[in-house]
Amino acid sequence: MTSSNPAAADASLLFTDLYQLTMAQAYLRHGLHELPAQFDAFFRRPPDYGAHQAGYAVAAGAAELLAWMADAALAPDDEDRLRGMRTAAGEPLFDDAFLAWLRDRRGLDDVELRAVPEGRVIHPVAPFAVVEAPLAVAQLLETSVLNHLNYPTLIATRAARLRHAAGGRPLIEFGMRRGHGRAVDAGARAALIGGVDASSNTGASLRLGVPPRGTHAHSFVQAIMATGGDELDAFRAYAEVYPDDCLLLLDTVDTLDSGLPNAIRVFEELRARGHEPRGVRLDSGDLAHLALHVARELDAAGFPDAVITLSNQLDELTIWQIRQQIQDEASSVGVDAQPVLDRLVFGVGTRLITSKGACALDGVYKLVAVHHDGEWRPSAKLSDTPEKATVPGPKALFRVYDARGMATADLVTLADERPRAGEPLTLRHPADERYRSLAVDEVSDVEPLLETHWSGGCARVEPQDVAALRARREADEARLDAGVRRLRNPHRYHVSLSERLWRLRQSTV
Amino acid sequence: MTSSNPAAADASLLFTDLYQLTMAQAYLRHGLHELPAQFDAFFRRPPDYGAHQAGYAVAAGAAELLAWMADAALAPDDEDRLRGMRTAAGEPLFDDAFLAWLRDRRGLDDVELRAVPEGRVIHPVAPFAVVEAPLAVAQLLETSVLNHLNYPTLIATRAARLRHAAGGRPLIEFGMRRGHGRAVDAGARAALIGGVDASSNTGASLRLGVPPRGTHAHSFVQAIMATGGDELDAFRAYAEVYPDDCLLLLDTVDTLDSGLPNAIRVFEELRARGHEPRGVRLDSGDLAHLALHVARELDAAGFPDAVITLSNQLDELTIWQIRQQIQDEASSVGVDAQPVLDRLVFGVGTRLITSKGACALDGVYKLVAVHHDGEWRPSAKLSDTPEKATVPGPKALFRVYDARGMATADLVTLADERPRAGEPLTLRHPADERYRSLAVDEVSDVEPLLETHWSGGCARVEPQDVAALRARREADEARLDAGVRRLRNPHRYHVSLSERLWRLRQSTV
Repeated sequence: MTSSNPAAADASLLFTDLYQLTMAQAYLRHGLHELPAQFDAFFRRPPDYGAHQAGYAVAAGAAELLAWMADAALAPDDEDRLRGMRTAAGEPLFDDAFLAWLRDRRGLDDVELRAVPEGRVIHPVAPFAVVEAPLAVAQLLETSVLNHLNYPTLIATRAARLRHAAGGRPLIEFGMRRGHGRAVDAGARAALIGGVDASSNTGASLRLGVPPRGTHAHSFVQAIMATGGDELDAFRAYAEVYPDDCLLLLDTVDTLDSGLPNAIRVFEELRARGHEPRGVRLDSGDLAHLALHVARELDAAGFPDAVITLSNQLDELTIWQIRQQIQDEASSVGVDAQPVLDRLVFGVGTRLITSKGACALDGVYKLVAVHHDGEWRPSAKLSDTPEKATVPGPKALFRVYDARGMATADLVTLADERPRAGEPLTLRHPADERYRSLAVDEVSDVEPLLETHWSGGCARVEPQDVAALRARREADEARLDAGVRRLRNPHRYHVSLSERLWRLRQSTV
Repeated sequence: MTSSNPAAADASLLFTDLYQLTMAQAYLRHGLHELPAQFDAFFRRPPDYGAHQAGYAVAAGAAELLAWMADAALAPDDEDRLRGMRTAAGEPLFDDAFLAWLRDRRGLDDVELRAVPEGRVIHPVAPFAVVEAPLAVAQLLETSVLNHLNYPTLIATRAARLRHAAGGRPLIEFGMRRGHGRAVDAGARAALIGGVDASSNTGASLRLGVPPRGTHAHSFVQAIMATGGDELDAFRAYAEVYPDDCLLLLDTVDTLDSGLPNAIRVFEELRARGHEPRGVRLDSGDLAHLALHVARELDAAGFPDAVITLSNQLDELTIWQIRQQIQDEASSVGVDAQPVLDRLVFGVGTRLITSKGACALDGVYKLVAVHHDGEWRPSAKLSDTPEKATVPGPKALFRVYDARGMATADLVTLADERPRAGEPLTLRHPADERYRSLAVDEVSDVEPLLETHWSGGCARVEPQDVAALRARREADEARLDAGVRRLRNPHRYHVSLSERLWRLRQSTV
């Protein structure tokens, strides 16, 4: 077994599907490789988790994509491996001219990437990223663009839903052990953008400047017990080392009969020494019911500020249900619901980091225009399935705000259009004859959404920390109608085409 | 935007959950860090995809784990970041003694990792990996062990099911664009171990020594059309560059009316120039129905050996259904089913690389023993949920083969037991009083499954290429009863405890 990862992730131009390389060589051989081309990246529908559905998505992953673009190169040993590939007839698959061309792609200085910035709300059909580059280069980038944007967008979207369900209470991401390999680092970042407050992923969190969070595990209690101690000894041992961050896991033996009384005893000892406990964690059983009982006992013991952290296969519906059950059941336990809700912390693992129920964003990357004979020639993929047909032409994207300042539609136009507030707008349904006409007083703002992220071989957006990206998301969500944000059967947000783009599309389908 | 990935994957000891670090420091502070400890990694049930279920899993990911172990270190800037962490009282969270201890963990020379080798069939409850190390080190490794093994095992398992469904026909993995970020490299490797024949992931495939595979995309046809050509021109352009590897995508315009006749024309031109075409690819529509029509026309045109590659949201049930539909419908189209089935190639994307329906393996890592006062003290996590309770004690694992040479049970024992063929065996049900007694003539072999993968700071298994790992899997699958292998409602394979281990467990629950 060698010490180097057998299929290691790195910044390689070979982080792509083989057909991108064979197509690029074919373009080169036919002299088409330098033709300017535009590809749109978009998704067809927001994630559908089965029992619940997203009404929007949250853009993420551009930072990872730009990092790859800055470093992507053809390493000499990878070039040798490509050179060793053979056709069915035993000839070299790739010729020297192509390998030299590929080697020269380092720096990607002829690529322009426009994208909706990270943290912003995005919608189906509308391009969230547009690549303009020589045909062979734009082709080569397809896999990497989609790989780097699809997963973080999926996770930021899921985190935004959890944020909504958690009603302002802290959310901690800790799915690292069940996430898909090294994707957990990008996943933790996307979760933070989407709305979790912290992650247990130590390396990723620290590099992002967001303090990681954690408590202790059953194994800590077990280890103390295996050496002759009991749960109380374990709690004391933990509290002694972390007197100001003491959060105790209650369910290693029995939550109400053992964990809770032992925790309260240790909390009292801590307070006697001048420290306030942080709280407790429940990781099994009926979390809503247990939270009520635990809250009551903590209150009675004089620890009304101790948080109650809940974990165990949580997702947005489960959190929603737990909060509802606490409201419904509080009086029968003899406590007020609101103070219990106000001391909850939610730990979300597998269902966030893998987006259980909708484990992929269906983002695609489609050729929409080729510059030929002095003009952009629109291109579309036809399809027997109308929803799979693409919208041709080089594009721009705008968000239209109504008189209340709320987002009322995303408007996809041709690249040379610039709709503005103060002009009447026609919003065409992308798939049929329906349209909306907006009078001047119905539109408060028309905001361009695509920003240049990469051109001339360099990233063109300022680095933003997670807090800034989260603020972007919150600002966008505040301008979404509640119906679009709801967790189940959300209202469908309008994504429209301009009159000119609609006519172009009609002429090609 | 910086050029380095904001939450980059690397071989860091901080690739872990924060609580592993806080627990490790607490063990250190209490002088418990050097206590020898054993943790078992196991999963509770094979993946359940909803409409279908796995009856077994295929081990993978040890190569990635060993690569991480060999390189894992505490980089100086990460150490500075840890040093900057603060408690709620504003004190440093980690002290110098702990940071020095963590820095010294580089090399992991006091860790022994035993595991079921990659490619082997594994079952629930039985430990697929055992870590024996000083308590604080074993604790620290939890996240990385699970992260590195859970996802590849999930994907190798899914690939093995697709291999079964595809009935011996070639399977190509091309989920890179929808997979979870950089996990796609480990995913491609796991898919190859599990049974796909090739992947489109160029970098990962080439580094694994398995030629990547691919064809061309709709964009290739669109690009030629946007510059004034048509689909026939596009096919000719592709065939000219790849005369011996010509596989044409038929559905950019219309599969039967345009793609197929154009492809046949280009195939005839190729043959006239002395080349044989590889075949066609169908990516939309009723794939079974289209495959029959395409096969008939290719036969009529004299290309009975041209393959028909199918893709578009395939999974094991869809492939099973396509093959069945071809058998049912062949006569009505006027062709024989078997030759059509024998020319199919399956391309599997999102549903393999994300394991749609069961996007995580529920692998866990539990403390089972601590060496204290001269002996191994068993440890178990109790639970109100009996299925969540763990089996205590240092363990060994064996596979019991019956008189036919078929695997009849996996037997988990205490570490000092060595069951052998030629002795009667008692197999205890892990959760209740049931047991099986096997007479001497009912057991042909008892095979130890755990092998030392890491000790003394080095990997202890020889590197194996993908072909060898695939052969291992095939050998194991050949010794599984058909009922365990079936795609829906598989028969439950027996995982049993030895009499001694069962008694130990009974004494702790």
